[in-house]
This record gives sequence, C-alpha cells and structure tokens, in this order.
Amino acid sequence: MTEHDRVLIDLTAATLEGAEPYGLVEDAAIAIAGSKIAWVGPRADLPRAFRDQPTESLGNRLVTPGLIDCHTHIVHGGDRAREFEMRLEGASYEEIARAGGGIVSTVTATRAASEADLLADALRRVDVLIAEGVTGIEIKSGYGLDIDTELRMLRSARAVGQQHPIRVRTTFLGAHATPTEYAGRDDAYIDEVCIPALRAAHAEGLVDAVDGFCEGIAFQPAQIARVFDVARELGLPVKLHAEQLSNLGGAKLAASYGALSADHIEYLDADGVKAMAEAGTVAVILPGAFYTLRETQAPPIDLLRKHGVPMALATDINPGSSPLNSLLLTLNMGCTLFRMTPEEALRGATQHAARALGLDDCAMIRPGLRADLAVWDIKHPAELAYRIGFNPLHSRIFGGQS
Amino acid sequence: MTEHDRVLIDLTAATLEGAEPYGLVEDAAIAIAGSKIAWVGPRADLPRAFRDQPTESLGNRLVTPGLIDCHTHIVHGGDRAREFEMRLEGASYEEIARAGGGIVSTVTATRAASEADLLADALRRVDVLIAEGVTGIEIKSGYGLDIDTELRMLRSARAVGQQHPIRVRTTFLGAHATPTEYAGRDDAYIDEVCIPALRAAHAEGLVDAVDGFCEGIAFQPAQIARVFDVARELGLPVKLHAEQLSNLGGAKLAASYGALSADHIEYLDADGVKAMAEAGTVAVILPGAFYTLRETQAPPIDLLRKHGVPMALATDINPGSSPLNSLLLTLNMGCTLFRMTPEEALRGATQHAARALGLDDCAMIRPGLRADLAVWDIKHPAELAYRIGFNPLHSRIFGGQS
Ligand SMILES: [Zn+2]
Ligand SMILES: [Zn+2]
Repeated sequence: MTEHDRVLIDLTAATLEGAEPYGLVEDAAIAIAGSKIAWVGPRADLPRAFRDQPTESLGNRLVTPGLIDCHTHIVHGGDRAREFEMRLEGASYEEIARAGGGIVSTVTATRAASEADLLADALRRVDVLIAEGVTGIEIKSGYGLDIDTELRMLRSARAVGQQHPIRVRTTFLGAHATPTEYAGRDDAYIDEVCIPALRAAHAEGLVDAVDGFCEGIAFQPAQIARVFDVARELGLPVKLHAEQLSNLGGAKLAASYGALSADHIEYLDADGVKAMAEAGTVAVILPGAFYTLRETQAPPIDLLRKHGVPMALATDINPGSSPLNSLLLTLNMGCTLFRMTPEEALRGATQHAARALGLDDCAMIRPGLRADLAVWDIKHPAELAYRIGFNPLHSRIFGGQS
Repeated sequence: MTEHDRVLIDLTAATLEGAEPYGLVEDAAIAIAGSKIAWVGPRADLPRAFRDQPTESLGNRLVTPGLIDCHTHIVHGGDRAREFEMRLEGASYEEIARAGGGIVSTVTATRAASEADLLADALRRVDVLIAEGVTGIEIKSGYGLDIDTELRMLRSARAVGQQHPIRVRTTFLGAHATPTEYAGRDDAYIDEVCIPALRAAHAEGLVDAVDGFCEGIAFQPAQIARVFDVARELGLPVKLHAEQLSNLGGAKLAASYGALSADHIEYLDADGVKAMAEAGTVAVILPGAFYTLRETQAPPIDLLRKHGVPMALATDINPGSSPLNSLLLTLNMGCTLFRMTPEEALRGATQHAARALGLDDCAMIRPGLRADLAVWDIKHPAELAYRIGFNPLHSRIFGGQS
C-alpha cells in the first residue's frame, strides 16, 4: 500500500473537467497530497512545488475518477435464482407466489439473516464492484419492512464501508413495499413502521438519505409525501423510485422536495423533466431492471439532455429485478439499450452519481477533491462502455492510497 | 497443481446425465484417473476400487462440466470502441466508413498485427474466459481475408491452446467478408483467396472445421457451397453463420452437408429447423450480437425445442457486433432475451457446445470423459444464468489437474 505524497506520471487523465471530451489530458501528472488531489495537468506544466516529490509511473495507462454506484440494494438475504428459473420454465405468477417467490421471499430471507450474514453476503458482491474500480456505493434498506430489520440492514451497510476500502452512503427505503402482515393497510404500515423506523435509524446516525417506491404496485404520491415530510423535518435529503412502470408524477413530487435524484423514470414526461431541471434533481438511469424485466419504454434521454438534467447510471443491484453486479456492464447497457454516449455513461457513473448522493468532494480529477481514482489498461475511455463482460481495471487508488 | 488420481468429495455434481434436472447428484463423489473421470455417483456408492485413493474436499460446492465457448472470433487486431462511440454520437454509416470503421478496420488492424501480437491480445481475453470456468473454446479466422493473415490467425489460435490451459478448436472462416481489394468480385475472392487459403491452412494442420457467413451483406449460398465442397473433399466438417439478418436458406444448405452447427439463426424457418433436426446439426444461439445490434427477431427457440434440435450458447466474441467477453453473461442473455431455461443455457455452454465442435470426449460428468470441471461457490446451477456480471467460480479442473 502506497500512501505517501507523490506524483503519478506516465498516464492519460480523464479528468471530466474542461472543454475536451472526457476532460482528457495526455501525458498528464497527478499530484497526491494525503487523501486528496493536489494538482492535475500536463506533466510539462507540473509546478515547482511538486517537482521534488517521488513519482509513481502508471505505465501510460488511463486514469479516471473512481466509479460510484449510486443506487443499489446490495444488502439483502437470499437469492431468487429458483424464481428466475420457474418463470423461464413457464410458471405463472400465482405458482411463483405460492412457492414463496417475489419480494416476499427476499423479505423473509433478510429478516432471517443476522447482521453478520447480511454483511458477509454483501461484501462478496461489493468486492466485485471494488475490483471494477468502484470507490463509492449507495446502499438502501427496504427488505426488512419492520423496524428491527430495517435498522439491521443499515448497520450492515455502514459496516461495508468500515471493513472494505469503499465509501458507503446509506439510504432508508422503508417505503419499498408493504409487508404481508400489513396487506391492504399501506397507510398503517407507513405510520406504524416506516416512519418510526426512519426516526429510529436517523437517531442511530444510520441514514444519509430517504427513498421510496412510488408506483401502482407500491406507494401512492400522498404516502411518499408523508415520509418525505419527516425526512425534511429531520434534515435528510430525499430521492425516489419514480415512473418506472407508469407515470404517477413521482419525479415532480420528488423535485418539489428538492430531491437529490429521481430513479428509473422510464415513463417520465416533459413536465417531470422540467421540474427535475429546475430543482437540480439528478436522473438516475437503471438499465439493469429494464433489461431483466424486458421493458420496452426507455427513459426520455433526449429530453433529459435537452433540459440539462444530469444523468447518472447505476446497477440497481437487487435479487429480483436486477441481479446485475457490474457497474462496467451498466455503462454498456446505458449505451446499448438507451443510446447514451460512452462519455455520458462515464460521467453518469462518476460525477453525476456523486451528485445523486449529495457528494461534492469526489468523482472528478480536480485539486482539492478526494484522490479516489481508477487506473485502466485501455487507451481510450470509450472502451469502458464498449466492452461487455471484460474488466480492464489495472488498479485503484482510494483516498490517496494505492 | 494437483494431478494425481484422487476422489473429489463434499460436492453436488451437475452431471447433465440421467433423468434428474441438470443430472444433479447430491453428496456426490467424482473419481479422477489421469486426465479422465473414472467414476461419478453418490459418495455412499463409491466402489471399493476407489476407496483407498486420496480424497479432495470441495467444501460442498457445486461441480459442473467445464464450460465450452463454441463460437468466437477472439483472435483479432484492434478494437472498435471509437466506432461504437461515433455511432452513439449520431454519426452516419458513411461517416463511420470514412473514418475507417466497420469490419474493414478490423481487417486492417489484423493484417498489421504479428502472430505474437495477435496471440498476446487474444490471451488477455481468453484468460477472462478461463477465470469463468471455460475449458474449451473455438476460434475462427476471418479477419485476414488474405492467405498469409488467415494462416497467421489460425497459428495464433493454436498457440492459445499450447500456452494456456484450455482446449482450442480452430475454424477456417475465409468466407467471412470480401476484402476491399476484391470489392464487387466475391466469386474471384472465393476462388483466388478463400479456397487456396483453406487448402494451405489444412495442409499445415490448422483447421478443425470450415465456416462461412451466408447473408445478403456477405456470401450467397452458391458461394458457400463451393467452399463446403472443398471442405468435404478435405474431410473437414462444416458450420455456418446463417439466417442472422434474413433467411437465405443457409441452415438448410449447411444441414445438407451434415454441418456440425448453424449459428445465429434468428430468421430460421420451420423447414430449416426440420433439416437441422434430421442432419443432427446443432443450433448455436448467439445473444451477444442480438443484444449489441438491438435486433428484435429472436431465434425460433420453441420450434428448435419441439424438433429436438440441440441448442448451444456462445459469446461470438468479436470487436464489432459482439464485444462480449463473458460466457456466464451469455447464459443470462440466452435466458433473459430468448427465454431459454437456465438448464438449457448450461447444457448449451457444455454438452451441446461440445457437439457443435464435434467433440464427444468431454462436457458431461461421465466415466471415460475428460476431467474438465468447474467448481462453483453456489448452491444451485440456476444461479449461473441468474446472476449478471458476477462470477462465482471457485476453481477449475483441466484434464484432471486442479
Ligand atoms: Zn431500486
Ligand atoms: Zn461469428
């Protein structure tokens, strides 16, 4: 592990700053001081102050900001492989439900898992992301749906960032689904479980943001608003699963709370796009669920571009609709399925992902920001989105440490 | 490296034999003698002859046959990342062609590459497959389109199997495209380059099978037939890229030559399916190109099932239409995009893939076959197709060697 102040040389830097595509700087140098970037630019311009520092050659590799996965359900119990198989063997929705399938099965497995189980399982998956150059990840609760388990999920999420070299932002997602014991009593679930769980989790310092699932099969806007009101009272930012399968106006609702992000948004309309643009709400694009569910309605990428809404890309890793454990593959899906450009994809998994998490201290290569970097065995950053199932990571620098 | 005769224990075996789904045997034992499987069955039934052999515990993991990728263009020069990017930035077909894009760019890069360059590049990609439990791979020529380069590609392909622990089957694909120097003179290319290259490559022992690309944008059935006639004369089996973008009757033509496989076959009709069934020709399903090209016509999986045509699954890894470097991800795509079952997917990347290569000595767990095995950190084989971008391989046994 290298952690002293030094100057990285023999590299091309995709800084994401300035007018060049990808903010590319050829034959660049990056000075690292402690956990931060002290300077970046053409090596020939390296200021005198850094010229006596030790250098570290990166062998003419490409350096990007470390990747950030800004929407995951990576802490969960069990898997849904058998349900996946039953569906492909032609089982009906009813047969799968009778066999204990669907989100209920994940809730049951998550409730049955200890904090240590949840952590160990999550770390296996997180390590795959770390090996892809990911330096930051968001982790949601939402498979407990009772107070104890929601808190246990969030504690496991926090532990991920304490035990492995990755930054974790936690999101409380009590308003994910109504558990069977509250079937038909969504409002009672919100009042008796979701909001008390949020208050308890916040009191324990476990919550960085508050999320919900606004959809016909989940919660109505008015129910989400009650959760968001509590978030506002607690001083917590919000985000929302919105417009995935239909348009309930969730993104507009989220924007009215100054949301960090609205996520999925396949069915978002122009009105919603404008509301997001005005509020500075990030559009989090999740091609993994679109692919897995074989959806046909793509998010309104052109409209988002036109109105200057920043677009992030994330895995949405979850055991049901998106068992997608690769952020690099997500870049390819964003391009292939939604016609994002490779540069939009890379910015979506770095700077805009950071913004979707309320982070302003990382995810570009700029003096003063965290030295969270990914070093790649490629010539051009477009290769990151072009390849499918090939990981060209050479190494990662996390908080200045190689 | 363990290579002595031994008995593997503490495992579940997906033998692909017998009436159980996946040929599953719980608490199984697998006896290995030299490079072969000597016995497999419930551990309790292990014959006396093997009871004194040393045992090797696999920690209750799942064991499948090693995977086989039966359709790849993994030896090639260059990449097409910039073309991928230009297309997503809205460049027209003409602009891309003017910038040197398309298959021409790969031919140019392949012609410019030495045998050592081609090998080194291919090995980077092959190693990713090996890390996924792949023990056998097919490699095609077809980016040289001149005699020297076609031979150089095949030599590099053979070298892959000599330098890394994987079996290689080579396929001559001179009839892949017409090079620019023969533009508009397809027949002359077949006579003056393709067929002489095939004879030269065969004379050097470089050809295990002969392939072609039968399509409006490539070669007509009558041209393919001339190449196949030479293959027959040389005693070489054939296979064909057929019915990918339209129906020219390629699969039926291939079947009439007793082809090992017809590959892609999105536009295959009932007549073609029947011809394949009668000839014992394997259907090689290639979801990577379907995904990348955003095709909408899926291969006729139900018809293939109904007529008992064996279905294989392969990556088709190539720099243009399928930069897909993961056979595991291909299993998921076969299920998600084409509604194959996880069991069909696994059989498609093992036993039926072997058959598509004319191999009958591997790809199931059966006494007498090669001990090419994959050991997985999963409970059920359906997980192999369920997960996306997650590699649960624990270890690989290749020719009896751990
Ligand atoms: Zn989600
Ligand atoms: Zn091919």
